[in-house]
Amino acid sequence: MGEHTVSAFDQELNEIDRLIREMADTAARMVSASIKALLAGDAAAAQRVISEDAVMDTYQRELDDRAITLIGKRQPMAQDLRTVLGAIRMAGDLERIGDLAKNIAKRVSAVGSIGTPKSLSHGIDSMATLVLAQVGSVVDRYVARDGDGLRVIRDEDQKIDVSYTAVFRELLTYMMEDPRNITACTHLLFCAKNLERIGDHVTNIAEIGYFIVTGAQLPTQRPKFDETTAAIVGS
Amino acid sequence: MGEHTVSAFDQELNEIDRLIREMADTAARMVSASIKALLAGDAAAAQRVISEDAVMDTYQRELDDRAITLIGKRQPMAQDLRTVLGAIRMAGDLERIGDLAKNIAKRVSAVGSIGTPKSLSHGIDSMATLVLAQVGSVVDRYVARDGDGLRVIRDEDQKIDVSYTAVFRELLTYMMEDPRNITACTHLLFCAKNLERIGDHVTNIAEIGYFIVTGAQLPTQRPKFDETTAAIVGS
Repeated sequence: MGEHTVSAFDQELNEIDRLIREMADTAARMVSASIKALLAGDAAAAQRVISEDAVMDTYQRELDDRAITLIGKRQPMAQDLRTVLGAIRMAGDLERIGDLAKNIAKRVSAVGSIGTPKSLSHGIDSMATLVLAQVGSVVDRYVARDGDGLRVIRDEDQKIDVSYTAVFRELLTYMMEDPRNITACTHLLFCAKNLERIGDHVTNIAEIGYFIVTGAQLPTQRPKFDETTAAIVGS
Repeated sequence: MGEHTVSAFDQELNEIDRLIREMADTAARMVSASIKALLAGDAAAAQRVISEDAVMDTYQRELDDRAITLIGKRQPMAQDLRTVLGAIRMAGDLERIGDLAKNIAKRVSAVGSIGTPKSLSHGIDSMATLVLAQVGSVVDRYVARDGDGLRVIRDEDQKIDVSYTAVFRELLTYMMEDPRNITACTHLLFCAKNLERIGDHVTNIAEIGYFIVTGAQLPTQRPKFDETTAAIVGS
């Protein structure tokens, strides 16, 4: 795969990498815009995010078609086959990230009228910042075939989980303080959960990428524990 | 693929079908047991569901290995390649169904102590019944290569969505009635959402299966609308 021996196969693989990068850029843009729309209660911006989901589907279908054609035509073995199958999987994770952003956007109208307390919107915003940094860098590290970088990204998912737990607790508190907050907070809860799930998809991508680059599985995933599953707040 | 010409390739494909069936059976068992544990507040039963997730991972890895070996060894074209790649994808969806059941099981301890109102547990139970029927039959219809059956299953996901919306509304009502219900109801909300997402994975499996069997995509998905994203309850 060195620069000196760029085969036709490598060129087709570069094309697949390009599509993965496009998908990651689109997904990151959707996540960022959905959170902005959510915190501003901007229904029109939310609608634009929702319509961008079709772009992701088109990219994914193009990538799948190219990958399947490539397997049929070149009949790659071992590492090359692993790369092509891995690309199909990564595209699946990126498509789901777009889906989750769309779901956040769909909730804007249900949340919007009520408005979000300042400290809460700060919590969601900083969670989104963490998630966006991860979405951006995981594909960079993969395209650079940087195994160590991918391992670091996988391990950083923990920060997102911690941030999610804090937002979750704060949302429960708001609901308990005033029942009129319950509907909006419930939707914000799902939005925060979506961000946490986007982090999980980044973890998947990092693991798939690491396997492609190194041929080895990352050491069994750190014990993942969604702390909120055991949260008893206020009692 | 007729019965009269069972090649070595077909035999290996049958082996992959067998693994998909095992995964579907395990996933259905996990979903059923997680809901029983949830409604009974049975932490020990929940723990058994959580530990079964490792079985799913093992199946998935075995299926992936077989599929990749098969592609490398037989270098299948067109429909056969579509079948093998489709199997890898279906295994991914089944693995996620197991994951979602595990997530329900993890919430048992947070919900358990509080107890679930009768009408609510009836709602969740009947949602689970719908979902279980879908998980069981989608793989049956796929293994029988029954395209029409798969189309029917895809379209029936709507019933699950309707059921989810009803449970969602009821949960919001309980939270508003008494703030002490909020923590438990929040976890039940995620459990109901998990069941709805399991339905979405069944839809994916039906679509992948239909494509393998017929070579055509199912008509663009019916306009899916999670009604709860627009629900304003009680105000």
